[in-house]
Amino acid sequence: MLTLAPAVSWEGGCPGRLAVLDQTKLPDETTVLQLERVEQLHDAIRRLAVRGAPAIGVAAGYGVVLGLQGLRDGAAHDVTRELDRVSRYLTTARPTAVNLSWAVARVGARVRREAEKNVSASALVAAALDEAHLLEIEERERCDRIGALGAALLRDGDAVYTHCNTGALAAIGIGTALGVVRAAADQGKKLRVFAGETRPLLQGARLTALELQRAGIPVEIVTDGMCARVFATRKVAAVIVGADRIAANGDVANKIGTCTLAIVARHYGVPFYVAAPLSTLDLEIPDGARIPIEERPPEEILEMGGRRIAPLGVDAFNPAFDVTPASLVTGIITEAGIASPPGTDTIAKLLGKRT
Amino acid sequence: MLTLAPAVSWEGGCPGRLAVLDQTKLPDETTVLQLERVEQLHDAIRRLAVRGAPAIGVAAGYGVVLGLQGLRDGAAHDVTRELDRVSRYLTTARPTAVNLSWAVARVGARVRREAEKNVSASALVAAALDEAHLLEIEERERCDRIGALGAALLRDGDAVYTHCNTGALAAIGIGTALGVVRAAADQGKKLRVFAGETRPLLQGARLTALELQRAGIPVEIVTDGMCARVFATRKVAAVIVGADRIAANGDVANKIGTCTLAIVARHYGVPFYVAAPLSTLDLEIPDGARIPIEERPPEEILEMGGRRIAPLGVDAFNPAFDVTPASLVTGIITEAGIASPPGTDTIAKLLGKRT
Repeated sequence: MLTLAPAVSWEGGCPGRLAVLDQTKLPDETTVLQLERVEQLHDAIRRLAVRGAPAIGVAAGYGVVLGLQGLRDGAAHDVTRELDRVSRYLTTARPTAVNLSWAVARVGARVRREAEKNVSASALVAAALDEAHLLEIEERERCDRIGALGAALLRDGDAVYTHCNTGALAAIGIGTALGVVRAAADQGKKLRVFAGETRPLLQGARLTALELQRAGIPVEIVTDGMCARVFATRKVAAVIVGADRIAANGDVANKIGTCTLAIVARHYGVPFYVAAPLSTLDLEIPDGARIPIEERPPEEILEMGGRRIAPLGVDAFNPAFDVTPASLVTGIITEAGIASPPGTDTIAKLLGKRT
Repeated sequence: MLTLAPAVSWEGGCPGRLAVLDQTKLPDETTVLQLERVEQLHDAIRRLAVRGAPAIGVAAGYGVVLGLQGLRDGAAHDVTRELDRVSRYLTTARPTAVNLSWAVARVGARVRREAEKNVSASALVAAALDEAHLLEIEERERCDRIGALGAALLRDGDAVYTHCNTGALAAIGIGTALGVVRAAADQGKKLRVFAGETRPLLQGARLTALELQRAGIPVEIVTDGMCARVFATRKVAAVIVGADRIAANGDVANKIGTCTLAIVARHYGVPFYVAAPLSTLDLEIPDGARIPIEERPPEEILEMGGRRIAPLGVDAFNPAFDVTPASLVTGIITEAGIASPPGTDTIAKLLGKRT
């Protein structure tokens, strides 16, 4: 199997740099960005060079290191002061995926714990890097556990429908929803996948198709509006998607088109699963209505590869995510188990297992 | 208001030619094809230069004339023999829209009636042209009646959601579903429209947006997967779409994505209307499962403007239509009234009014 460059990887020690595969250019070009400053990472996240909630989280963890590493020869209190600024700055890159702020907060908390020990600036930056590394390792393990738990839901010969990209490019390791497919395939189950192309930015057609092709798993791309036709005419065992933020009650914010897909899956009685690490949960948010939904520039819809599709002067509405109510979700596959049906109680139980 | 060239218009007498606006090039270029042979029209229909069930019907009516006009100086029986061949040939251009075979059959029946009177070949061709003209005039009047009946369902300030293109470009006159919007706007109602872009060929983003912009009706383009988000966050009074073939029980074949939209509209309690002339009804077909659904080349999904989107070697599933069950349709707006709820009985009642 041919493998792609990792979505995100730290190169060197401290100081070092973050290698980010530019996913906006796939599948045409494989360009790896070498980021040395936090502003470069902020820009890469904003323009979706790195995307997918878990991958954004890991990248942002290293982003804290990028923001602090220039201060390692100075005073420790300058590092902790800069930490506040860098943390706020990184979380503004994208508003919906909670993994971003979760990762930044986690690396920040580690630095603050170290700072209480009156260590040097250099030791604080080293601690940030260590925590970001830990976060990456744990995220990889979480994906493996999600894959193993989810794979048990799939049988040899099943067809799976997915949306957007939730594989190795979106995460660290095998990914979340696509990681479930990969894990089942690794168990020897023959699967085939319908991949929603995922307008406007075609992560399904560009990235999911690429990952599945390289993994040797048969895939057919469909347009997002085709899901009803697919369910009506083909036997689909399950829909599996990822998540960018999950509210305490189990409502799921994910790539635009997910809620449409969930409603249609329910209409045809097709089980609808969300695969996401517990870091995607936001217990501060009681329900999906409170999840901030990023609106992106209309040009993402109105243009394609720099070429205008629609008449000049016409507008577009471009929310990047939608919210699928928990009632439409069969189960949320996490590293600690499957919350099924998802709700405050089943989610609390999984969180209890984690701690 | 700026107007576009008509989708289809006959130029000259007999012999004459069919002027077809090449809709594949809109909104970038306005190219009018001058078709003199039936093979050219067959090609134009296949590659969607002319599209939309009513427009295809009218074009095919004139197509019979194109196929016969070279024989007008010969023997009458050569004309009727060629009529059979041309009719079969034209109906192979696209399988789903029933208006095509309906129009061809209607012009053919007129020619055969004339032939019984032992008239000349030239008179037979003239009769075909006369019938095609009649068909065009009647289709325009049908759109006007559909528009008037449908406009009564809309109130000042309403937002309407539509899919694909069902305006003047898809029909003759004001169109069907978009004709309803146009008629309501002409009554002074301020409306705004969400236009699903309609992948893969973007008839919504390219054509519906263009027509609404020129009519001065505010429009926002959305991707097809966004319908749930639109209904969840904006007040939408109704979905109105067209149809390519309606079975006797009211099941509706229409542009791929329509059934997905209907399921989502039902979930949010948004009324879902189909606007179509009675010529779209196919009483030979008892229910939607028997409607032939055209599958088109995967490249329509995998490429955009000649540029490959997906990785090479990856496949796509490309049904051009889907079937919305009558149970999801609030009403079918026809020139003879609104079948609501649509079903064998309400449809039969409308057909009774027509005859």
